[in-house]
Amino acid sequence: MAAGAATITPIGTDLLSREQLRERLQAVGESRYHHKHPFHLRMHRGELTRGQLQAWALNRYYYQSRIPIKDALILAKSDDPAFRRAWRKRILDHDGDQGGYGGVEKWIQLAEATGLSRVQVIPCTGLLPGVRYAVDAYLELVRHSSLLIAVASSLTELFSRELIALRMDQMRIHYPYLTPGFAYFVGRLTQAPEDAMVGLDYVSTHALTRSQQEEVVGALEAKCAILWAQLDAIDYAYVAPGNIPPGAFVPDCE
Amino acid sequence: MAAGAATITPIGTDLLSREQLRERLQAVGESRYHHKHPFHLRMHRGELTRGQLQAWALNRYYYQSRIPIKDALILAKSDDPAFRRAWRKRILDHDGDQGGYGGVEKWIQLAEATGLSRVQVIPCTGLLPGVRYAVDAYLELVRHSSLLIAVASSLTELFSRELIALRMDQMRIHYPYLTPGFAYFVGRLTQAPEDAMVGLDYVSTHALTRSQQEEVVGALEAKCAILWAQLDAIDYAYVAPGNIPPGAFVPDCE
Repeated sequence: MAAGAATITPIGTDLLSREQLRERLQAVGESRYHHKHPFHLRMHRGELTRGQLQAWALNRYYYQSRIPIKDALILAKSDDPAFRRAWRKRILDHDGDQGGYGGVEKWIQLAEATGLSRVQVIPCTGLLPGVRYAVDAYLELVRHSSLLIAVASSLTELFSRELIALRMDQMRIHYPYLTPGFAYFVGRLTQAPEDAMVGLDYVSTHALTRSQQEEVVGALEAKCAILWAQLDAIDYAYVAPGNIPPGAFVPDCE
Repeated sequence: MAAGAATITPIGTDLLSREQLRERLQAVGESRYHHKHPFHLRMHRGELTRGQLQAWALNRYYYQSRIPIKDALILAKSDDPAFRRAWRKRILDHDGDQGGYGGVEKWIQLAEATGLSRVQVIPCTGLLPGVRYAVDAYLELVRHSSLLIAVASSLTELFSRELIALRMDQMRIHYPYLTPGFAYFVGRLTQAPEDAMVGLDYVSTHALTRSQQEEVVGALEAKCAILWAQLDAIDYAYVAPGNIPPGAFVPDCE
């Protein structure tokens, strides 16, 4: 069963050009990427409390912590050393070198800037079940799909630079106490577009039929739904009162 | 990674008696079963619109449709013909006999009573991604766990009769147009307690250490979180305006 919401797309039979495929992917991002999610809109308008930002950072940590696992699953699907060398960079970016200073560690520092302690974040105690299921659905999608589809599901990176740049601007204005935790965002400003180009080139080269191209588009839709659903769970639990599920993190500050 | 929200439970080392284990499971139900979910409370107070009940019936159909698959996964874990004969009843209950009149079909009739058509329901078009991920997490939990844990995750049936009886009473008062779709509920009033006794007897007999008993309790917590998260997604998307995710069902009535 595919992970994303079903859609009805008029499907032709002609192979799309690289440019046409790129346009299709771009259109998915415009309509389904989580830059339009109500929780992000609240964040950018400065409406979130410190406790709500804590809940966001804590829950999103689970996603961050699974990224190198997802990338290792993708590495394991390829029998091409050149592809593996190119993709390996992502694991390094997230796990860091021997000192361990990579994206996962940087996200912990962001969470610390919200006022959480490292030991509250790392065990994922109090993670929202809805976030866990969405992130695990991403791993399942990658685990059980072809290399082409697994790579395609990474293409939300096409859209992340713009969102991160906006987020940094708005956080500086509305939540200046977060700026010591900006290293993750700064890193992603350059990493994400580089990685997106690798992924886009891969799917453009390896989707050899229109049907495969449609699967690539569908994989990006599925990934957008996975990101969106994480914010649904966070927005539901932490914006209106009375909705935190049993066992989930309860902020101790407004 | 376990599917449920993490909890901190003081764990002893002595084996619990059957009665003590039953009390522990009952306590999980009281605090975590979805009878206390805000969406169910709204439903029982008569606050839901027909469109919201459509969204609930449509989304919950995906869960219903996965139940016989879940039970087949459980059957496949047992090498005991007597256990398989007892558990097989559940598949019959949901899939029906050759005429096909079982729980899945009855749920479709409930959805029809909300005003949906069969063809809107069965393909799961417009399913909320959050509901899909939660239900798929249930299948993954059952697929990858021991028979003991898979059976334990079914024990929410201990609590369902009471919820269904209350729901029927309140629906008769507040949403009388649903009564033609009550066959599913009527069936479950007797099936669920029977099934729960089979499951309870199994875990009481086969959890041979305290550690296994704690795993049984944890599996019930995990299952409660899976039910709860489905309602989180429905409540978020369909109660406050502006929250329906891209691609999801949009009711055409209030």
